[in-house]
Amino acid sequence: MNIWEELQESVGFTFTDLVLLKTAFTHSSYVNEHRKEKIEDNERLEFLGDAVLEVTVSHYLFKKFPDLAEGQMTKMRAAIVCEPSLVSFAEMVNFSRYVRLGRGEERAGGRTRPALLADVFESFIGALFLDQGLDKVVRFLERVVFPKIDAGYFEQTVDYKTQLQEIVQKDRDVVITYTILDEKGPAHSKAFEAIVAINHEKRGAGTGKTKKQAEQKAAQNAIQALRQN
Amino acid sequence: MNIWEELQESVGFTFTDLVLLKTAFTHSSYVNEHRKEKIEDNERLEFLGDAVLEVTVSHYLFKKFPDLAEGQMTKMRAAIVCEPSLVSFAEMVNFSRYVRLGRGEERAGGRTRPALLADVFESFIGALFLDQGLDKVVRFLERVVFPKIDAGYFEQTVDYKTQLQEIVQKDRDVVITYTILDEKGPAHSKAFEAIVAINHEKRGAGTGKTKKQAEQKAAQNAIQALRQN
Repeated sequence: MNIWEELQESVGFTFTDLVLLKTAFTHSSYVNEHRKEKIEDNERLEFLGDAVLEVTVSHYLFKKFPDLAEGQMTKMRAAIVCEPSLVSFAEMVNFSRYVRLGRGEERAGGRTRPALLADVFESFIGALFLDQGLDKVVRFLERVVFPKIDAGYFEQTVDYKTQLQEIVQKDRDVVITYTILDEKGPAHSKAFEAIVAINHEKRGAGTGKTKKQAEQKAAQNAIQALRQN
Repeated sequence: MNIWEELQESVGFTFTDLVLLKTAFTHSSYVNEHRKEKIEDNERLEFLGDAVLEVTVSHYLFKKFPDLAEGQMTKMRAAIVCEPSLVSFAEMVNFSRYVRLGRGEERAGGRTRPALLADVFESFIGALFLDQGLDKVVRFLERVVFPKIDAGYFEQTVDYKTQLQEIVQKDRDVVITYTILDEKGPAHSKAFEAIVAINHEKRGAGTGKTKKQAEQKAAQNAIQALRQN
């Protein structure tokens, strides 16, 4: 089994156009050392893949968080498609192993350079989109990206307290107050319970490992209740 | 025929979920004046539509300009999805007529405000994507956006001379020279002819209404020739 067969088996797709797959993993430094062969580097695929990733992640967030305001979704998306996150996705599928690099770049440690790995993740998405279509991209992200969203990896970027304020501030003279009710559990695994009141009426409750987390949960809870009424 | 039937006829799609279509045209100022009705504004759809527009335009540029480098495609895409362009697209399909505005915003002239129209174009794309899928979005853009790309509206953003330089500068000691050969035609419709030489060897030619245009065409021509050899 050659390296490209191995890669395809690992990602779970068989490419119709193997050149597309190879191009996705071809750094410009490799092209520069193989000028005679007329190989293309991955930069154009990266341009396309960036946009494909953006739309698939946006659609997922849109469906998964029906109560999240546009500004909060934008923040969460930015955390998902930023370089460190893309690097962690690329590492999950061991992409650094398949990159075609020039010798100089290889010696300089380019293979594990974060920017390079993030780019390769995007160019792979671009190639997958061209060769297999958007549905297969979604299927790939269901394995590599969406589980991390589901696990709450990016929710620390979401500020539900701010969002609740934005929702209710449209009415004048509204007072939002948070109260920590209780501290539960033993010292090594404390849990806090918070409630949020709007104009001194309880509208949501939440628990968390920190006071801040509990308040965020209470705010999220209040937003859901407001949307449903 | 009510206004929503008229709109659907005008864009050429029948929505399964009419609420989605209405939401796309609902400004937050309208929601604020109809709090009792629990209507949603178009901001979340705008978030999604922005990403959908980005990927469909990126894919179109990727296919249409196989010789264009990533940086040049990025510039052209930015010119296509910028506010003034989106406003012109929204005006082509008369979107301002369908916007649901609050009374204050209406009095303040919000209906024809560029930022509002650009947002509505994006939120409509988001609604169309959710209701009818990506292929139908492409079909819509084939009527409203892609013909303007084909007509060269956005090509002034592309700098082929810079791109040619980037391609050849990877080899050291390369000299690129442009020469205007000829000035043809009568004074009111002059045409210039330019050639570009790499290391004093002619590699491309182009004509244009200005010297600058002729040089750009010559550079574009040389890039194509380089890619093909």
